[in-house]
Amino acid sequence: MSNERSVINFTRGVPANESLPVTAMQSAVQAALDNHGQTMLQYGKAYGFVPLREWLAESNGLSVDQVLITNGSLQIVEFLSYHFIQPGDVIFTELPTYDRALTLLKRHNAKVVGIELEPDGPNIEALEQALAQHTPKFFYIIPDFQNPTGATCSLEKRQKIAALAEKHGFWILEDGPYRPLRFQGEEHPSFFDLAPERTLHMFAFTKLIGPGVRTGVLLGSAEVLAKVAKIAENTYICPALFGQGAVYEFCRTGELDKQIERIKTLYAPRLQACLDSIAEHLPDVEATRPEGGFFMSLTFPEGVTNAAVREAAKKYNLNLADGQAFFPNGGGERFLRLPYCALSPEEINDGVSRLAMAIRDVQAS
Amino acid sequence: MSNERSVINFTRGVPANESLPVTAMQSAVQAALDNHGQTMLQYGKAYGFVPLREWLAESNGLSVDQVLITNGSLQIVEFLSYHFIQPGDVIFTELPTYDRALTLLKRHNAKVVGIELEPDGPNIEALEQALAQHTPKFFYIIPDFQNPTGATCSLEKRQKIAALAEKHGFWILEDGPYRPLRFQGEEHPSFFDLAPERTLHMFAFTKLIGPGVRTGVLLGSAEVLAKVAKIAENTYICPALFGQGAVYEFCRTGELDKQIERIKTLYAPRLQACLDSIAEHLPDVEATRPEGGFFMSLTFPEGVTNAAVREAAKKYNLNLADGQAFFPNGGGERFLRLPYCALSPEEINDGVSRLAMAIRDVQAS
Repeated sequence: MSNERSVINFTRGVPANESLPVTAMQSAVQAALDNHGQTMLQYGKAYGFVPLREWLAESNGLSVDQVLITNGSLQIVEFLSYHFIQPGDVIFTELPTYDRALTLLKRHNAKVVGIELEPDGPNIEALEQALAQHTPKFFYIIPDFQNPTGATCSLEKRQKIAALAEKHGFWILEDGPYRPLRFQGEEHPSFFDLAPERTLHMFAFTKLIGPGVRTGVLLGSAEVLAKVAKIAENTYICPALFGQGAVYEFCRTGELDKQIERIKTLYAPRLQACLDSIAEHLPDVEATRPEGGFFMSLTFPEGVTNAAVREAAKKYNLNLADGQAFFPNGGGERFLRLPYCALSPEEINDGVSRLAMAIRDVQAS
Repeated sequence: MSNERSVINFTRGVPANESLPVTAMQSAVQAALDNHGQTMLQYGKAYGFVPLREWLAESNGLSVDQVLITNGSLQIVEFLSYHFIQPGDVIFTELPTYDRALTLLKRHNAKVVGIELEPDGPNIEALEQALAQHTPKFFYIIPDFQNPTGATCSLEKRQKIAALAEKHGFWILEDGPYRPLRFQGEEHPSFFDLAPERTLHMFAFTKLIGPGVRTGVLLGSAEVLAKVAKIAENTYICPALFGQGAVYEFCRTGELDKQIERIKTLYAPRLQACLDSIAEHLPDVEATRPEGGFFMSLTFPEGVTNAAVREAAKKYNLNLADGQAFFPNGGGERFLRLPYCALSPEEINDGVSRLAMAIRDVQAS
């Protein structure tokens, strides 16, 4: 039977191929090369392509020296790790959190302390208890449609965390790549809105335009950014200005806003298909209910591990991701992230029904 | 007087703005997006854009898993430092060498040992003496039109160094960004030709197409590259495929070969202008005589330091670079790198005559 099934991947948070704005990017890069060709092909400052920095500064009410552009936002975590972390320094993250950020923090020998994440954001008591033990260099937090859970932090918790950051003097590293992708409900102020002096805000065009442009953005303290820019210069002299020029034209001409509407229209039914098929096929599994973004997540019943389900899923040609990679210090044995954006509603329904079969196989074994 | 003079920069190795192939890159990126649009905008493997890897593999008689593409070649030094260097490990470089490579090696707490560079390559006795004390993890070497000196390593020395690498079991990290830019004389085999099992060969399109595409290439051991690819993935998931697609079309359609001929025609007279104006204005200064590339270098007479000349040059609106940054462990007080590619022959002649005035001012003070 398995040979007849096409492969379904619930693995990484990949945009749908059909969402990628190839034609609009063709126009954008032509115009960009007409207007800024030499700048896009030459060396530039480590801070990135100046017209895009200016556009981002104006859009966010910042000065240009508060905007730094990199080759994708993951590398911002790398640069900030170089800046902030000496071996053994403490970093807080949500528990669970983005696995690739954890890999980088551990590469820099940080001591990562996970703060239990609830459906409305980090558990504040757990945060206060952790703060009684350590003041972290920063708290890495994805408040909107979190990776891997899909959870969004409530306004009340944002205010409490911002107040704790002020009181204890730690940085909030706010990662917001999914924030523009709200399908329903109301947007909360960002940490950068609430505590601009204590927040470094990062996002990327990866989930909006496409990963291949590798254009990440860091907003915040000009003083910290100057140090990050020096680390960036020492690493790659300057980022890939060729793609940044195209991104700039895409933003400046209003294509970005249109693109965000298009992909919300594409992705919202995919999240709904996830929720519906989980209600149908997996009524007893604990599931998050995101209002946007790329991910939802499941917690299997007691005794059913991700590892066992992942193995069992293979015979249904269903690929699942390790759940434990999102947990900095163990745990997550029953956790599964479900990235839905790159799958059609039909594939999602098919995938969830295969998942239900795999879970039943594990329970029966 | 100084206010009347335009500024002349003998500072960094920047391509001439007029060399940047804006129109040809417009055609290349259009065709690339037509043929590979989704691939250029999507995530890909950490190894880089597959069609460009295939083209490079075929051009160099390698398998595709021996080709890895990064966001500029400096980052290859960073990735290899992550791979090879534990704090205190020994790395050899030429003395002097590329300052930005030194910055990265030191960021990884390598112990850098400089091997004295002569006009025909590293001093072999010095290398043998250093090898009696340490076996380095690798010897970072720029054999063709070296940065910062412009020196090219002779065939005889290449053979000796390759034999020593085999005997002592160290890697040669061969950096070849200037190798295609030979204005006269005959090309020698690369270290990668002579000792393919002991050499990791890196180069970039920075000095050929333009820095803004940030496309560096590492060729060599599939086993080492697999480890570098994992480090790259952990750092930025995948490199900027958008620009790599354009570079691929530029290469595939023969534009790269035409571009190399164009810039050799542009740059050769600039090197000649350097040599001529030094013969005219600075007959007593020790100068290298490169046969290609981006740099030549000077050693000032006893008692005349780079720092003093750099300061004195300011009143002539002449910007010079620090010489000592190219020396890993001190020295270089009288050393000056002269990058000539971004200046017209007239500017070069003017710049060298200003340099001569600055040196005279220092000697008279």
